[in-house]
Parts: sequence; structure tokens; C-alpha cells
Amino acid sequence: MSKVSKEDALKYHSEGKAGKIEVIPTKPYSTQRDLSLAYTPGVAEPCLEIEQDAEKAYEYTAKGNLVAVISNGTAVLGLGDIGALAGKPVMEGKGLLFKIFAGIDVFDIEVNEKDPDKFIAAVKAISPTFGGINLEDIKAPECFEIETRLKEELNIPVMHDDQHGTAIISGAGLLNALDIQGKKIEEAKLVVNGAGAAASSCTKLYMGLGIKKENIVMVDSKGVISTSRTDLSPAKKQFATERTDIKTLADAMRGADIFLGLSVADVLTTEMVQSMNEKPIVFALANPNPEISYDKAMASRKDLIFATGRSDYPNQINNVLGFPYIFRGALDVRATAINEEMKLAATYAIAKLTKEPVPDVVNSAYGIKRLSFGPEYIIPKALDPRLLTAVAPAVAKAAMDSGVAQHHITDWDAYNDRLKKLMGYDNKMLREFTEMARKEPKRVVFAEANHANMLQAASTAMKEGICKPILLGNDELIGKLAESIGVDLSGMQIINLRHPNEEDRRIRYAQLLTEKRQREGMTYAEAHEKMFDRNYFGMMMVEAGEADAFITGTYSKYAETIQIAKEVIGIREGYKHFGAMHIMNTKCGTYSSPIHSSIGNQLPKH
Amino acid sequence: MSKVSKEDALKYHSEGKAGKIEVIPTKPYSTQRDLSLAYTPGVAEPCLEIEQDAEKAYEYTAKGNLVAVISNGTAVLGLGDIGALAGKPVMEGKGLLFKIFAGIDVFDIEVNEKDPDKFIAAVKAISPTFGGINLEDIKAPECFEIETRLKEELNIPVMHDDQHGTAIISGAGLLNALDIQGKKIEEAKLVVNGAGAAASSCTKLYMGLGIKKENIVMVDSKGVISTSRTDLSPAKKQFATERTDIKTLADAMRGADIFLGLSVADVLTTEMVQSMNEKPIVFALANPNPEISYDKAMASRKDLIFATGRSDYPNQINNVLGFPYIFRGALDVRATAINEEMKLAATYAIAKLTKEPVPDVVNSAYGIKRLSFGPEYIIPKALDPRLLTAVAPAVAKAAMDSGVAQHHITDWDAYNDRLKKLMGYDNKMLREFTEMARKEPKRVVFAEANHANMLQAASTAMKEGICKPILLGNDELIGKLAESIGVDLSGMQIINLRHPNEEDRRIRYAQLLTEKRQREGMTYAEAHEKMFDRNYFGMMMVEAGEADAFITGTYSKYAETIQIAKEVIGIREGYKHFGAMHIMNTKCGTYSSPIHSSIGNQLPKH
Repeated sequence: MSKVSKEDALKYHSEGKAGKIEVIPTKPYSTQRDLSLAYTPGVAEPCLEIEQDAEKAYEYTAKGNLVAVISNGTAVLGLGDIGALAGKPVMEGKGLLFKIFAGIDVFDIEVNEKDPDKFIAAVKAISPTFGGINLEDIKAPECFEIETRLKEELNIPVMHDDQHGTAIISGAGLLNALDIQGKKIEEAKLVVNGAGAAASSCTKLYMGLGIKKENIVMVDSKGVISTSRTDLSPAKKQFATERTDIKTLADAMRGADIFLGLSVADVLTTEMVQSMNEKPIVFALANPNPEISYDKAMASRKDLIFATGRSDYPNQINNVLGFPYIFRGALDVRATAINEEMKLAATYAIAKLTKEPVPDVVNSAYGIKRLSFGPEYIIPKALDPRLLTAVAPAVAKAAMDSGVAQHHITDWDAYNDRLKKLMGYDNKMLREFTEMARKEPKRVVFAEANHANMLQAASTAMKEGICKPILLGNDELIGKLAESIGVDLSGMQIINLRHPNEEDRRIRYAQLLTEKRQREGMTYAEAHEKMFDRNYFGMMMVEAGEADAFITGTYSKYAETIQIAKEVIGIREGYKHFGAMHIMNTKCGTYSSPIHSSIGNQLPKH
Repeated sequence: MSKVSKEDALKYHSEGKAGKIEVIPTKPYSTQRDLSLAYTPGVAEPCLEIEQDAEKAYEYTAKGNLVAVISNGTAVLGLGDIGALAGKPVMEGKGLLFKIFAGIDVFDIEVNEKDPDKFIAAVKAISPTFGGINLEDIKAPECFEIETRLKEELNIPVMHDDQHGTAIISGAGLLNALDIQGKKIEEAKLVVNGAGAAASSCTKLYMGLGIKKENIVMVDSKGVISTSRTDLSPAKKQFATERTDIKTLADAMRGADIFLGLSVADVLTTEMVQSMNEKPIVFALANPNPEISYDKAMASRKDLIFATGRSDYPNQINNVLGFPYIFRGALDVRATAINEEMKLAATYAIAKLTKEPVPDVVNSAYGIKRLSFGPEYIIPKALDPRLLTAVAPAVAKAAMDSGVAQHHITDWDAYNDRLKKLMGYDNKMLREFTEMARKEPKRVVFAEANHANMLQAASTAMKEGICKPILLGNDELIGKLAESIGVDLSGMQIINLRHPNEEDRRIRYAQLLTEKRQREGMTYAEAHEKMFDRNYFGMMMVEAGEADAFITGTYSKYAETIQIAKEVIGIREGYKHFGAMHIMNTKCGTYSSPIHSSIGNQLPKH
């Protein structure tokens, strides 16, 4: 879990355009002709086609790539029932993840309705809009009826991610953990702590993977769920054990192979973990704090494989490994449902991907030297770009094999290529650069730190850990500016280049520059004068080895600053040219091109 | 109404990404830190803020700029009840218009529900999602109850555009027409033909503008709606006349000042128009064909002011003049409704704008020499960029004055600036270029017409009327390519530059080039050889005055083609340099910059 402050989170959501999403046209709209095609009279044509054949909606509208993320806000994150509206930031965020990981467009829909019948009626009514429905953050037990009925009554894929997402991802981790521990799933003894929607769905999926019902013990807040209890809902009853020798979680844990926690923080003790069978597996998935802390769990025994929901420890069980790709696959074969076969296919695909060699881009995204299959890497990382081509085709194929696909993929290589192209616009390059910079943050001079954008950039860069900023400018003025735009200056060095205190440095830099450029006629007086210029001064810091890089150009002119760079830093011995490179990150890919190349020895005459 | 073919309309909707819209993130998402802000754990902060204070949803989510365009597809365009799904292209199109004219994000929601109670329940349930609701294409009489109840039961702006949009726009036209005809609205006699939702709403708004009830006669398919009739719905009864001397439309028209048609094609005869009072006003708004054709109406009498719903005649009553700006104003003051005051304010603002001098950008967008207030210009044009700053502030102010605004604008200049900035990303420049080119289409050589993109570009450019394409290449191969990509070649000249039949032209061009470049050592043999190169040949067409412009560069290299241009066409006498310019159209504005400048006399040596 990255550290983010409340202020940062609120600023992120409110800055510029409120919220996190916008809707834009994908077709031209500049001319009268364009508008005649987009709206009347041209738009009547696709309408008539769809009226004749509903399938055509997938050809002429955005429906086929459009998923609704729908919630009534009754179980938002760990916050509980905060209401439909208050859940909107989460639903928009989920939409953003769908888009950036799988190119799926999302309308987030907040439904102000807690009654399952009415909720279902509303969702059914608006369902023609969408190609699929992701139910989100709806509390148990209503979520069971809601999902079951919508799946029955609609012929588009419907999935309640809180139930099945966790099941699929933890299921994949479980398969790999059992493999590493050398255990057979058919023989493994499972304890599930928590009996909510996710617990129920995980347990069912694990049974699909091979766990035997007689090896399962589920525990709720009142103790072991056994057939002898009379207070059980139908949802709990289906997992009730016939064992009569155990009452408490501690009882249940003795000799267990697997613990799955979907409950609350700190209910699992060191002793309980120690009482498990040899080579045990503990998935402590309570959020934000697990059933047992990482440190405590790891200290309890050496033969443990441990996973949590947290990103700051190994083995994060994160739903984002699943939902974007599961819906991608389902949409691409126009599946009428997301069935058990598709969920199992996703599980196996995620498990399998973990065993493959991890590409450098993933290692560097996490600043980890080398991830490889083992106790600390039983599940892929969220930013692994291979998930799309590993999971979506597996889900699509399972939909075809299980008879719920209305469209059949025949050329899987072409489909893979299409998926890769689809995501060509992700910011992989930027991510790689960022992580590269983070490994060894450089000292970067921000010449125009007296400018709000620059100061903000320096602050963000420091927060992201990608550089150690050096701000050039009057410290008092920078202080005022920082206060007015809400930037925290701590940790950033400020050099007031024109202050009397810096005279020693100006003299030293002027001498260095004079030595370097005396053949071109530079005098000391001239060089000293230049040291009051922030671009000369800052570049001399780099030249003198007191900084690693230099940023300018917000209001300084390119043509002038590049002359200064030539003069102060110059061109490496043996080379005649220098170049400038611009990089453009666009939806269609990344373009870079040298836009300026100049002969280096044309130094300005003095 | 621009001419568009069925094929073009279907291709526009299906080409590339199906449909017309996509949802994209507005916030950064490249780093782990970004995702921690956009989703867990950071997203919990705005959720908690909104839980405390619902108003904060406008600060932390997209709600405040998000309008639902909602339809059940029961009265789509002139197509009738084609169903919710089949109406989706229209709703997406409406969303596109909201975005390009007023920067408003739209989720189009297709509701599969005809029962008003259930429709209302579904819309109410999902209403927390949105900042406003635009009801669309819902048939009468259900639309009345649906709109009335949603307005009562929700505290966000709700408007059924089919009713009120037409009322507002035609009302503005009516005010101006009466002004030109020198009539007082309080004395004007109105005949309304048609008694559906739009007719009812127009009549009510006209009464708000000053029309007296006793001066109104409404006519439905059974004749004049009078108090003596027993078959009237409540909606019709409110407009029933007490006159007993008239039964038919022809009766009603005698001596009338205004005819408003919201009915069907060709029900109004020349005689009826001739029987009207002097200086009459006829709004024949049936779509796509009006109650009386433009030619017939104009021929019937000289003192007539005539308007229709068509874009190919003067005075188009087009809803797009209203809804984007009405919602913009309503959203910007967080209005709890769109009330009568706001609709009247929009009407007066649109009427007033018509009287102001029309800027060149509007004249040229329509290829009209000079629009000015008068019988043929009683209403602004749809592409008039001033509508945003004329209508939105008027609506916002009316909301404030009538007590439905939750947010108050105090600095109207700043608001105007914000509106202009908001729309900075519209393609005004492209539109101006297009219209400029259309005035005098030039002969343009497409050198690489053997390439699918180029051929498509040539075809589109010709369809838009911006040039007369000349395609270079083997006519047989181009014919095959055209067929395979569905391009119609008719009207485009093809020159098979390497064919024996073109030898005369090659000889002539070679001679011209030899003459021009002999001082640099060009020989005739060399020049003739070059005429088999499509770039040399095409540029020689321009040099010889047989074409006006030349396009290449899809697969030809810039550096090579620019050398050919220097060699074949060269630099104007007295100049030494030539430049290349790139233009980038971005969301933040248009940027243009010379990226290449070269000394012209550095011709390649031969």
C-alpha cells in the first residue's frame, strides 16, 4: 500500500476537472457532414439496422466495449454502507482500472436502492446500454440474490467482483502455493475464517479447483459453522462441517494445511499458525490490516507461505489481476455470462503466468531485482502487462468451450496481436522511466523554481522519489509561492543564486567557465556577470559536478538555453554534433524524434 | 440536411472502434502512486468526505459535469417506437453534441421499460450518478408524467428535450419573426397543428412569451380542438378554444398570424397560407419533410417568414441551439431544476444573439456571404460559437434569480472566460480551413493513391467538397484497391504516370525540368528518367500549372520529397529559404510551429 496523504488524495480527485473520467467522441465531428453522420439524418441508419437485428448494436454503438460498474454503496471498501453517492469515487476508480488495464469503457452507475427487487429492476431496465455488468461493493446477503437473478435474467456477462474476483486471484495463488509446498489439493485441509460473500465464493471456487468438502471448516464470529448449529443462513449451511470435535478457530486451525482469512485484523495468533500442519499456507486477506501481520506470521515458522491484500508485502491478492481481463475475454466472444468454467480458466491462467520468467519491465516497476516463482512470488504483480494476453484469451476460450460464446475466435494469434495493440497506449514507457529514475534518484536543478508549474513539478518528482530537487531562486519568494500553491518544500535544497552568500560559488564557477572558454574569448568579468543568470548558474552546477541534471524552459527560450548549454557544458571530445529529442506519448503509441541537430563548434562569438 | 448515404452513415458508426464515444481517465495513472490515489487506499478519502457532505460529490467526482441522456426508444427521431437498444446511436450522438458544444460529459442510458412508473423508478434509482438528466425520444403521453414526476422527485435538473428544446428554439425564432413583421405578440393569432408533447410544450412557452390563450387554436388529426369536443385528453383540453365557428385546419388558418406545425408532411396548402393575415409567420417543423415545402411556401406569398427543421433552407429550428447550453448554465450554478424562468431566459438569449452582427467564422462555416438579421435569418446557426457564452450565462442567471441555484456566480466576466476556455479544444480551425477550401476546390495530386489511406483521404476530401483529387497510379490497381476498401472512384481523375499513353506528358515535363535546372547540370535523359517517379511527376504537374497542390509522404520519406520539391518547384525569386509547418490540434488548443527550415540554394549536385 503506497503511502498517500489525505490531502494528496483529495487534491488528485478535485484538481482540474473534478473526478477521474470524461466521455469523449471517437469519431470526427468537425464538419457539417460529420454531424450529419453522427446525428440526424445519418444516425437513423444504424438505428434501423439495430431495430432489425439487435446484434448490430455491437457493430454501430459503444455497447460491446462498455461495462457498467454498478453499486448501491452498501459495502464500499472497508468503509461499510456509506451510500450510493459516496461510493462514486470508488466506482469511477474501478472504471479507470478497467480502461487502463484492458481498454474497456466504463459507465459507473450509483444506484440509490437497497431493496434487492428494486435494485434488480433498475439494473435490468438500463441493461440494454451495456455489454457487461460488474456489480461492486454490495453487501451480503443481498448481493447473492442480486447477482443470481441478474445472471439468470440478463444475457450479458454479469459478475459481482467482490465475490468472484477475490476467489479467482486467491485461487490462483493457492494452486501455486500448494505446488511449492508439494501438497495435493484433494488432500488439503482448509479453514475459512469469515462467512461473508467473498468467503462463500472463494470456498466454492476452491472446491471447483479440487478441495474436498469434507476437508473444509468455515468459522464465523460465533465459531465453527457445523451442522449442529441452528442459527445458520442457507449461505452458511452449505459449508457446515459434520465434525463435532471443534468449536473455535483455534480448534479448527490444528493440523490445517490452508488458512483463508476474509474477516478482521489480528484474529490469527502465532500459536494458531504454529499449530497448523507442516508447510502451511496462510492467506490473511482482511483489509487494510490482515488477520495476522506479515512480520508476526513470518516469525512464527519458516515453512509458511503467506499472502495478504497489501501491496507493501510479497504475494498481494489483488482483484485487478482479474476483472479487467475476465471482462475483456467475455466481451470479445460476446459471452452471455461469466460462468464457473470461465472463472476457473482465469484462475489457471493467472497461476500459470506466475511460473513464467518475469520480464524486466515488471521487475523494474516494483524495484525488485528478480522476481521468480517461489514462496514470495505465488501470484503475478498487478502491473504485469502479460496478464492481458494470458487471462483474456483463456477466458474467451472457456466461454467458447462451455457454450456461452456468441462470437467465436478462430485465429488466436491475431486476437493476441489485437489485445497488444489495444493497450499500445498504456504508459509503459513512462512507468519504466519513472522506476529507472527511482532506483538512483539524481540531483536535478530546477532553474525556474520561482514558477508555480516548476515548483509543483519539483515537488511531485520528489514525492515520487525520482529525483532530489535543487531549486534555484530567492528562498523567500519561493517560500511564499510554495505556501500559496500548497507545496511542501521540506527535503528540497534551495540555492539563492544572486545572494551575497553565494559569491564564493559565483567566483568559482566564473573561473571554471573562463578557463573552459578563454580560447573563444571569454573573460572572467563576463563569466562572473553570467553567474547571475539562473540558466548559466544552474548549468555550471552540472558542469562542476555539483548536480546531475538541469531543467529549464518554462519561460526561458529554447534557442537561448541551448546556446548556454553548448557554451557551459559543450560537446564531448571527438564529437561534432549534439541533438535534442522530444518524446510524444499518444494513444497510438510512443513517438520520439530528434527535432534539432546542430553543429557543436558554432559557439557564439564574444 | 446534408446528403449522407446509408453506407457512409453505417461506416462512420462501425469504423475503427464501434460507436461514437469512449470513457477515458482525466487524471494521471502511470505510476503505483497514481493508482494508490485513484483507487485504494487513497480513494477512501473522497468517499468519506462525500459521506459527510453530499455536495462534495461535485468536487471529487465527475457528477457535476455529467448528464444522462435517457430514452426508452419509444419515439426515436421520426422512426417511432424502435425500442431502447435501437435508439442507442441517437443517444450516443446526443452525448457527442453535448460534449462538442458545451463540454458536458454524457452517459447515454437506454432503458428497456415502457411503463412510466417502472421507468421513473429506474431513473430515480440511478440518479445519484448524474448532475442532470436529459430525457429523450419518449413518446406522449407517457413523457408528460415521466418528466413531471422526475422533476418533482429529483433535485437535479431534468428536461425532456423533445418537448422543451423545440419550444425554446422556435420561441426565439417567433420573437424575432414578430419583430420583423412588426406585430405584437399579445395580439398575434396562433394556429398549432399537432397536439403531441412538443406542440403542448411550445404552446405553453409561447404563452409565457405573451401569446394570449384566446388567440390560440390547436388542431389535431380530428380537427380543431374545441371545448365542444368530448374526446379530449387533459393535455389537449387545456388548449381547447371556445370558438364554435371553426372545425378544420383550413377554417383555423383564415386570418391567423402564426402557424406552428408539429405534425406531418404536406398538410398545409398554398391556399391556407394565402388565407392568413398579412405578414404571416409559418413554422413548418415536421421532420424530415415539413407541413408545406419551402418552395411552395415561398411561392404562396411575398410577405411570409418561413422556418423548418431542415438544415438545407434558411431558419432551421434546431434543438442543438439549446440543450447543450441550457444544461451548461444549469450545471454551473448547480440548479435543482430547469424551470420556466430558465427556459424563457434561454429563449430571449437566443433571440437576442440573432440580432448581433454575425462573425465571419459563422458565415464561412455555412458558405454564406453575409448573414444578417431579417426574414431569412431569424435564428442563429447551429455552429455559431457565440451560443455558449450567450445562452449558458442567461440560463445560469435565471436559475439564480428564480431561486433554484445552489451555487452563485458573481464574476460573470470570469465565467465567460471559463466557458471560452472550456471549448478551446473545439475544431474551429479545422472547420474554418475546411470551409475555406470548399469555396474554391483546388486540383490536388495524391501521389500515393495506390495506398489505401491516401485513396480514402482523396475520396473523403472529394465528398466534403474541399478538393478535386487527381490520383497518380496504375488505374487497374487503384480500381481493385478502391473496390476492396469500398471507395467510389467516380469524379476523380486517375493518371497512370508510367503508362505508354503518358509518354507525351513525360517528354513535356522532362523538357520543362531540363530547362529549369540545366545550370545545375540536369540533362534531358536524367529528367525523363525522373518522370517515372510519382513524386517528380506529380510535382511537375503543379509546376506546369496542371494541378494546384500535391500531397505525398505516406510512405515516401520527407527528406527525399522535400529535395524533389526544391528541385522541381524551387524557391521564389528573391527568397533564400523555405520552411515546413506542422499544425497540432490538441485539447489545450492549436499549436503550429516551423519544424524545418533550409537554405534553398543547396540543390542536390548531379
